Amino acid sequence: MTTNRLEAFSDGVLAIVITIMVLEMQVPEGSSWSHLKPVLPKFTSYVLSFMYVGIYWNNHHHLFQAIQKVNGKVLWANLFLLFTLSLLPFTTAWMGENHFEKNPVILYGLNLLLCAIAFLILEKTSTSSDGRSSVISSALESNRKEIISIVLYLIGVITAIFYPIIGLIFFVIVAIVWLIPDKRIENKLKN
Amino acid sequence: MTTNRLEAFSDGVLAIVITIMVLEMQVPEGSSWSHLKPVLPKFTSYVLSFMYVGIYWNNHHHLFQAIQKVNGKVLWANLFLLFTLSLLPFTTAWMGENHFEKNPVILYGLNLLLCAIAFLILEKTSTSSDGRSSVISSALESNRKEIISIVLYLIGVITAIFYPIIGLIFFVIVAIVWLIPDKRIENKLKN
Amino acid sequence: MTTNRLEAFSDGVLAIVITIMVLEMQVPEGSSWSHLKPVLPKFTSYVLSFMYVGIYWNNHHHLFQAIQKVNGKVLWANLFLLFTLSLLPFTTAWMGENHFEKNPVILYGLNLLLCAIAFLILEKTSTSSDGRSSVISSALESNRKEIISIVLYLIGVITAIFYPIIGLIFFVIVAIVWLIPDKRIENKLKN
Amino acid sequence: MTTNRLEAFSDGVLAIVITIMVLEMQVPEGSSWSHLKPVLPKFTSYVLSFMYVGIYWNNHHHLFQAIQKVNGKVLWANLFLLFTLSLLPFTTAWMGENHFEKNPVILYGLNLLLCAIAFLILEKTSTSSDGRSSVISSALESNRKEIISIVLYLIGVITAIFYPIIGLIFFVIVAIVWLIPDKRIENKLKN
Repeated sequence: MTTNRLEAFSDGVLAIVITIMVLEMQVPEGSSWSHLKPVLPKFTSYVLSFMYVGIYWNNHHHLFQAIQKVNGKVLWANLFLLFTLSLLPFTTAWMGENHFEKNPVILYGLNLLLCAIAFLILEKTSTSSDGRSSVISSALESNRKEIISIVLYLIGVITAIFYPIIGLIFFVIVAIVWLIPDKRIENKLKN
Repeated sequence: MTTNRLEAFSDGVLAIVITIMVLEMQVPEGSSWSHLKPVLPKFTSYVLSFMYVGIYWNNHHHLFQAIQKVNGKVLWANLFLLFTLSLLPFTTAWMGENHFEKNPVILYGLNLLLCAIAFLILEKTSTSSDGRSSVISSALESNRKEIISIVLYLIGVITAIFYPIIGLIFFVIVAIVWLIPDKRIENKLKN
Repeated sequence: MTTNRLEAFSDGVLAIVITIMVLEMQVPEGSSWSHLKPVLPKFTSYVLSFMYVGIYWNNHHHLFQAIQKVNGKVLWANLFLLFTLSLLPFTTAWMGENHFEKNPVILYGLNLLLCAIAFLILEKTSTSSDGRSSVISSALESNRKEIISIVLYLIGVITAIFYPIIGLIFFVIVAIVWLIPDKRIENKLKN
Repeated sequence: MTTNRLEAFSDGVLAIVITIMVLEMQVPEGSSWSHLKPVLPKFTSYVLSFMYVGIYWNNHHHLFQAIQKVNGKVLWANLFLLFTLSLLPFTTAWMGENHFEKNPVILYGLNLLLCAIAFLILEKTSTSSDGRSSVISSALESNRKEIISIVLYLIGVITAIFYPIIGLIFFVIVAIVWLIPDKRIENKLKN
């Protein structure tokens, strides 16, 4: 199977996930600036989650640029990733509604952790489906960046139990690390 | 007509159907874990329905990989399938809101039954539009898996009248059967 | 310009318009069958509007199968059609919420009329952008079916002022006329 | 990297942004015409914002018709544009709900200004990623139209502090200027 439809369907789901979160920002009834204040924490968490979904779209894009063929297993690994990402609007909204309190920050971190694991599974599945000798397998061999992210998320979740905001900072650090597009595949494709 | 736009439009609708269900999970106002409890049944039914829509997307993908040309009839059979799937968010939410009580489980089962019938119609229509001698017609000749699903859904719906949860288990069994991607078409395409 | 992106964007908008209407069907709180009763008129109008959007997608699909090149004017004519179709969820919901009373039925009819006019404009614009001698221009030369629809909508709207349900029947008749896919273009492409 | 997925994902997000705004138009409970009155300001701002998103889709379409290759920077510049456009449903709804009062009009203008800046950044980034000698760079060299828009938005925002409606008129003027599709790229591609 080619990757066309897998990419198109993923684009559709990600496009919806990324925009649905805007609906959580309820329009205030008054027209003074102070009426916008309660929307601020939701806006902040929207920005953060937009960045995350953007990062995943970016990495997804990079991944399937290198992969030519997929099998049934990859389709399901991809659906699992989309499922974990589809939970972000809910966990984002819960965190935004409760002004970054302990439990919502923990749940948000667990959600991000789940997304990272799902992406790692997708990478492994698609690499092996494409054949061991493929260009991608050598490019991603180490998965170092992915493993580091998972470790940072874990530390963040544990920290959030005691200091939610510091836990959140760990999540933001992972985002910044990934904001720099994955050069590994780009470089390999050039050679 | 080629199948490009039919696939793109279906991908769009399925992407929305699969993500719209997340909106039904209302964000709780408090931040303690107990506030998440009322969301649990909705989450459970979301997982189940995500799996179903995922299965249909998977099978849809497999089906139109083998089919090259479509006519007006196939377009309408496809729209009918999309219509039945678009009702899933509603029936899923009703079931989730009422903690898997009798009537909502029956309606959910009837919805799944309708989807299965619609997919069977789509298979028949597209196979015949593609010409009897096509690769797909021989691959799907028996439609055994589809017929078994329909029978299991029927048994599930009838059982749900007396024992809703047991009826639900029948629906889950069908899901598990389909989670294994349809090898028939993959095998035929290889030959 | 090729028509690829115009088609992809239209598919996206139509996919959302067709599925957004399901959100208008509010999930009832109780689990008895009688709780579903208030949802029925909304369900009926959902079925009707799903059919209409399906018809427009079908005709849009047929139209841009014959057209190879578009210019800026066609892009705007297409956006205008999408705008008129995007109002359908609103007018459908108003009609469904008010059990097919006079004013909502009239507004629904006017919305359908506007869609029909927008589609006629799109046909004219895209035909002329593609060059007068194109295959499509001869296929659609008469626009008979489109003109008849517009006349029937007009009669329906006027009738609805006195007998809403009879006006509605006129709208349903147009739907049935269009359910039969447009053979004109298919035939021309075969020659 | 080719631009296929960037275009597909953008189409998805823009399709949702453009249609989500219809959801803000709450269906009135009564069926008399006067019940539609409170919906009118929301409808007006919906029309305006539909035009804006349509314009951006149009220009986005024109831009990526000329560009062949993108790098990681362009992906992020594009995501930033999508982010600014995704805020339009919120600022539009706030303006519509408050009948074009001062603060909401100012925020709406700032949102439009942000979109214009984001588009300018995307143009610069994608032009340079495509190579200085490309067809697009010479076509867009001056960016005159973009700069004028940004200046008009700024004037509009400042004016809105004193006369909201006059500020709004400035925004409408920019829309009208852009309604005329960008001939620069079309002309260059013809040569």
